[in-house]
Amino acid sequence: MSTILIGGAGFIGSRLARRLLERGEHVLVIDNLCRGRRAFLQDMPGHAHLEFVEADAADPDALLRVCTPFHARFPTAVVRHMAANSDIPAGIADPAVDLRDTFMTTYAALQVMKTLGLKRLAFASSSAVYGDHGPETLLREESGPLLPISNYGAMKLASEALIGAAAESFLDRALIFRFPNVVGIPATHGVILDFIRKLRTSPGRLEVLGNGTQQKAYLHVEELVEAMLFIEERASGKLSLYNIGPEDAGCRVSDIAEAVVARVAPRADIVYGTEERGWVGDVPKFRYCVDKLARLGWKPRLSSLEAVRRAVEEIAAQEGLC
Amino acid sequence: MSTILIGGAGFIGSRLARRLLERGEHVLVIDNLCRGRRAFLQDMPGHAHLEFVEADAADPDALLRVCTPFHARFPTAVVRHMAANSDIPAGIADPAVDLRDTFMTTYAALQVMKTLGLKRLAFASSSAVYGDHGPETLLREESGPLLPISNYGAMKLASEALIGAAAESFLDRALIFRFPNVVGIPATHGVILDFIRKLRTSPGRLEVLGNGTQQKAYLHVEELVEAMLFIEERASGKLSLYNIGPEDAGCRVSDIAEAVVARVAPRADIVYGTEERGWVGDVPKFRYCVDKLARLGWKPRLSSLEAVRRAVEEIAAQEGLC
Repeated sequence: MSTILIGGAGFIGSRLARRLLERGEHVLVIDNLCRGRRAFLQDMPGHAHLEFVEADAADPDALLRVCTPFHARFPTAVVRHMAANSDIPAGIADPAVDLRDTFMTTYAALQVMKTLGLKRLAFASSSAVYGDHGPETLLREESGPLLPISNYGAMKLASEALIGAAAESFLDRALIFRFPNVVGIPATHGVILDFIRKLRTSPGRLEVLGNGTQQKAYLHVEELVEAMLFIEERASGKLSLYNIGPEDAGCRVSDIAEAVVARVAPRADIVYGTEERGWVGDVPKFRYCVDKLARLGWKPRLSSLEAVRRAVEEIAAQEGLC
Repeated sequence: MSTILIGGAGFIGSRLARRLLERGEHVLVIDNLCRGRRAFLQDMPGHAHLEFVEADAADPDALLRVCTPFHARFPTAVVRHMAANSDIPAGIADPAVDLRDTFMTTYAALQVMKTLGLKRLAFASSSAVYGDHGPETLLREESGPLLPISNYGAMKLASEALIGAAAESFLDRALIFRFPNVVGIPATHGVILDFIRKLRTSPGRLEVLGNGTQQKAYLHVEELVEAMLFIEERASGKLSLYNIGPEDAGCRVSDIAEAVVARVAPRADIVYGTEERGWVGDVPKFRYCVDKLARLGWKPRLSSLEAVRRAVEEIAAQEGLC
């Protein structure tokens, strides 16, 4: 088995790389190191089977140059596309960021797959494709309309759309995973890391964007990787679309703030904003249905809050807090 | 009232331009003349209110240069985005075509609207965003999953997604119209024109792609324009999404072939292929629900077959057949 792993030096990508190497795959990681880091690929098991190339996967020509020699050795490689701009507010301020890193990477990956005859794709999509359906709607894979409220979500949906067309035209197998919020290490972004860094700067006080009632589903990165590989093994059909997430309705930003404060600065005050949304493009509350994945046979072991608490420990350690 | 009409020299765009001029609007038409033609904008009513600029609307800088002086005179112009690659097989052969003409035009339009503070957008989307749900599924505005099977449909869905995010972030009003197949003149593409041109080349025989059972909803362009303006006037909310189409389940390709042959070459043989699909990315049969539009108060007068028959007459005349 072999994999071309786009965005493989990032938070989720590097964890997936580790797991693939553990099971003996040859892995080519392509990453522009915008958010990913070479250090995340150190100390990998079976590292002789790991190759890393720094390249801009949004450029079809650059991507083709990198993939061609790997494809010559491993003609049946699966392409796993985990690259994206993970900074949602940055993408709202400048849509060129999501256009390039979240969408054009998908466009380029599909171009290269068509050129080289690579037939299998696994893609990291997002619950952000649904947009804001209110706290009462249970978001299933077939829910619509899909009207994302961030450019990040828009470019993930745009990517899904292109993959749908490619599945019709030239792919043998396409897997689309809609991720919830994912937590764990190596943390490069996200609410837990933000809170920890804020508290290091001003240990007495944690200012939270929004009123703290925003509620979201969180999954630990280790379980996410497990779920992706499970779906890949069990799902059938040319095009498979799965929500991946915890079974609960999520936890609140206030729960996360409290968990971080308890671990990092127990005497700090938590100061909430007044808005229901943390930022433009933030979906304040949503309910995410993972029944399809449960029917396939996979369930997470951790609840949203348990995943968050474990990630708080891990990220505090990553940040050098004893 | 004033309008910036992107793709306004094309089939649908030029008909919309005429209607807007008739009601006294100032209209700036921007078109790259890839498929549109200057001739389509001749003999317009109130032509002193019509401005035309040949420019590539997929280029945000070029589009901004064109829109800025018009915006200085008409600061509250509505942007109506009708530009797209309308050749679906061409977009499957080379996805760069739909990327540029169908998607990047939307991206650029939104960039320019944000820069200039233009707040109202009307967008020509497509039933192709739904993908292939089989002949039994009634496709409603909220149907999902949205997995288009052509790059055209993918780039229309990608455009909808970006507009959703823009509505959340900086637009006051966004209208997304999902078009069925639209027929009429000035015809630049489509099955009726193809059939007429084939019959002019070989009058004794009409070869049809696919087995003729593909069934689709057709609307006459005049009714489509009427529906768009009706929705614009009546619909409320920041973001409105409407299917526009006839109330019937559509007519078959064989009905169209017969109508064209009867008009153009009554003694010609019609020779069908064996495939259910005319081409990769062709949805063979679908049912399109227009109840939401009917509830708003608009219904078409023509059935799919009546629209086709009227268009056959019009296109035959356009092509110089007496």
